[in-house]
Amino acid sequence: MTPGCSIPGPIEVADDVLYANAHPSMSHVSAEFVPVLGDCIRMTREVLLTTTGQPFLIAGSGTLGWDQVASNLVEPGEDVLVLNTGYFGDSFADCLQTYGAKVDQITAEVGGVVSQADIESALKTKKYKIVTFTHVDTSTGVLSDAKSIAETVKKVSPETLTALDGVCSVASEEIRMDDWGIDVVLTASQKGLGTPPGLSILVASEKAIKVFENRKIPPNSYYASWKKWLPIMQAYEKGSPAYFATPPVNLIYAYHASLTRITKGSPSLGERLQLHREASKKIKAAARELGLKQVPLDENFAANGMSAFYFPDGVTAPDVLPRLFKKDVIVAAGLHKAMKEKYFRIGHMGISVVDEQRGDIDKVIASMKEAIGQAIESKKV
Amino acid sequence: MTPGCSIPGPIEVADDVLYANAHPSMSHVSAEFVPVLGDCIRMTREVLLTTTGQPFLIAGSGTLGWDQVASNLVEPGEDVLVLNTGYFGDSFADCLQTYGAKVDQITAEVGGVVSQADIESALKTKKYKIVTFTHVDTSTGVLSDAKSIAETVKKVSPETLTALDGVCSVASEEIRMDDWGIDVVLTASQKGLGTPPGLSILVASEKAIKVFENRKIPPNSYYASWKKWLPIMQAYEKGSPAYFATPPVNLIYAYHASLTRITKGSPSLGERLQLHREASKKIKAAARELGLKQVPLDENFAANGMSAFYFPDGVTAPDVLPRLFKKDVIVAAGLHKAMKEKYFRIGHMGISVVDEQRGDIDKVIASMKEAIGQAIESKKV
Ligand SMILES: Cc1ncc(COP(=O)(O)O)c(C=O)c1O
Ligand SMILES: Cc1ncc(COP(=O)(O)O)c(C=O)c1O
Repeated sequence: MTPGCSIPGPIEVADDVLYANAHPSMSHVSAEFVPVLGDCIRMTREVLLTTTGQPFLIAGSGTLGWDQVASNLVEPGEDVLVLNTGYFGDSFADCLQTYGAKVDQITAEVGGVVSQADIESALKTKKYKIVTFTHVDTSTGVLSDAKSIAETVKKVSPETLTALDGVCSVASEEIRMDDWGIDVVLTASQKGLGTPPGLSILVASEKAIKVFENRKIPPNSYYASWKKWLPIMQAYEKGSPAYFATPPVNLIYAYHASLTRITKGSPSLGERLQLHREASKKIKAAARELGLKQVPLDENFAANGMSAFYFPDGVTAPDVLPRLFKKDVIVAAGLHKAMKEKYFRIGHMGISVVDEQRGDIDKVIASMKEAIGQAIESKKV
Repeated sequence: MTPGCSIPGPIEVADDVLYANAHPSMSHVSAEFVPVLGDCIRMTREVLLTTTGQPFLIAGSGTLGWDQVASNLVEPGEDVLVLNTGYFGDSFADCLQTYGAKVDQITAEVGGVVSQADIESALKTKKYKIVTFTHVDTSTGVLSDAKSIAETVKKVSPETLTALDGVCSVASEEIRMDDWGIDVVLTASQKGLGTPPGLSILVASEKAIKVFENRKIPPNSYYASWKKWLPIMQAYEKGSPAYFATPPVNLIYAYHASLTRITKGSPSLGERLQLHREASKKIKAAARELGLKQVPLDENFAANGMSAFYFPDGVTAPDVLPRLFKKDVIVAAGLHKAMKEKYFRIGHMGISVVDEQRGDIDKVIASMKEAIGQAIESKKV
C-alpha cells in the first residue's frame, strides 16, 4: 500500500499475502488447490468462533453478501427489520428490497445506535424473518452491540434470524458467532482479514441453513444462490473438487496466507483484537486532545478498527486531507449523506495495528496533530 | 501454472501479470488506481472491436455475466431463446429462468451447432427479447458462428438482442462486436484474457443499454445491477472515482498488464488469433493421425482455443489422463452430461500458444501421442 495509507479498507496487506496472490495459476479442481480452499473454509470458522457455521467463499465483494442474505434467507413479501446506523444500512435495505423483502428500518440518529428497547418493540409488532445490522458502519465508525441485539431477538422473537454485516468488523472486533447466536456473518477480504479485495465471505448458522432448506420457492438469485454453492463448499471441505463457477484461485491462496497468520500466528486472535482496542484508544485519545469530536456519540459504541472525527469549526476536508497526504498519511473523506463534508475517517485494522514495530499508529497520530494544527492556524490568518 | 497445464482455463498467465496481481494494496478511489481501471475499460473495448460498447468490470466470475444479462436485459415473463451447444447453455438457461425469463431452447445434437434455419423459424414464432448462445461451449469445444447468428437475428427480428457467452472465446476467437452487431459479450478473466480468475467482464452495445434504460421495472438483482454499475464505470472512464462495491483492485492491475500485452504488444490481436488457429490445426491434425475423433462434428465449427477428443474404443480417462499427468501435461476430463466419461479436453489459449518459443503445443502433441499409444497398448495385453 502507499506508505501510511490509513483508510478503512482496502487495507495494506502483508508481503506473504501479496506473494500468495501471485501464486502461479492453478486449476481450481487440482489436487493442490482443493485443500487450500478447504483450509480457508475451516479457518474462516475459527475467526468467527463457530464450529457449526457454514462458510461461503465466492468471487465478489462484501456487497454480494447482502445478495446472499436477500435471495437465500428471505422470500418475496416477507418482513425484514434493518437496524440502520449509516450508509451501509441504507444499502443493505435497498438490496433486500430488490429481492422482494418488505423492509422496515429503525434508523439511529447520526453517530448513535438503535436502542434495545426500540428493537424489542418493533419485534413485538410483526413477525420478522430476519433482523439485519451493520456491526461497524464504515460511514460513521459506529459499533453496534451484536451480542445484545442477538439476545433481544432471541428473547422476543426466537424464530427470527439475525444477520451481522461484518465487512468492517471481522478480525478487528470481537464476534462470537456460536455463543451469541448470530445466524449470518457476512464480510469481505479487504479489511480486517488483510487480503486484497475480490472475495465475498459469509458464514451461515445451522439454523440459517435450515431456514434456507425449507424455502417455499427457490433462491431468486443465480450467482449468489446457496443451492448452487452449498454442495460446492461441502465438497471442497471434504477434499474433493466440484464446480459451479470458477473460484478466484489466486485470491484464495492469498486469503489462506492471511488466515494462517490470524488463526495460527502470533498474536493470537484474542491478542489481535486487544491490539485493535489499544490502537483505537490511542488514536481517539489523541483526537480528543486536539479537540476533535468523534462521530460516534458514545465511546462504548465506537469501532476499534476505525475512527471518524468531525473537523474543527471552520476547517474542511481540503484544509486537512492534503496536509496529511503530504506526510504520506492517507485518510478517507466523509461518506454519510447527512454530513459528508464535515468529518474524516481513519482506518486502523490489520497489519498497521498488529505489527507494532512499524509505528504506523504513532505516525498517524503525529501527522494528524500537525495537519489539524496547521489547518486551524491557516484559518486564523 | 503447473508445468504443462493444458486445461481450458484457468490458463497459465504471464509473469508480469502475476507480478501485477501482487501490486501493493491501493485504495480503489486513489488517483493512482482510477486511470488503471479506466484503461481496462478502454482496452476491453479494443479486444472486442467495439467503439461504442459499454464495458462492466465486476468482481465475480464468468457466471455473473449471465446474472447481468438475465436481470438487466430481460424482465420477468419475457421470452428468451437459448441456443444450446452443451453444458454452459443449460446453465445460462437456468440462470435466465431464475430471474423470471420464459426460456425456449434449441438444443444442438452433441458436437453440433444450431442451424440458421432453426433459429430463423424460432424467431418467426415469437417475439424474443434476446437470443443467447455460447460462442465456444467449453464442454464440447463447439464454436458457434457468431456472425451468422447475429445476421439471422437482425434479418428476422431486428429488435431482438443477441448475447454471446465468450468466456471460452474472447481473445482466442475472432469477435467483431460492432461489425457483426452483437449486443452483449460476456466473459471472464481466466481464459483467453490471460489473467487470474475473479473478474466478470461484460460489454453491452448501445442498443442493449437503451433496452436496459427503458425497462419497466428495475433490475431484479442488486450486485449485478447496471443501475448501480453504469455510473461507476462511466465515472472511472472519465477519470474520477465512484463507489458502489469495492473493485478487485489487484486483479484490475493484473488485467491491465494482460490487456496491455493483448492490445499493444506483439503479436497484434489479429496475429494472436491467427496463432490460436494454427496451434489448433496442429493439435487437431495430430489427434486425427492418432485416430481420435473430435467431439465437434464439423471442422468448421470447432474452437481454436481448445479441443475435445473422444478416447479410442475401449480406452477411458483413467488410462490416459494419469499417463499425461506423469509427463506434466494436465488436460481436463469430459463435462457434457451425455458422455462425460468418453472424451477429454485440451486448452490451447493464451501464453502457451502465443509464446511459441515455449514449445508447449509440440509437447502436448508428443505427450498425447505417447499416452494414447500406451493406453491402447495396455488394453491389448
Ligand atoms: C460495513 C460495510 N458493509 C458492506 C460493504 C460493502 O463491501 P464491498 O465494498 O466489498 O462490496 C462495506 C464496504 O466498505 C462496508 O464497509
Ligand atoms: C462457456 C462458458 N461460459 C460460462 C462459464 C462460467 O464462467 P466461470 O466459471 O468463470 O463462472 C464458463 C466457465 O468455464 C464457460 O466455459
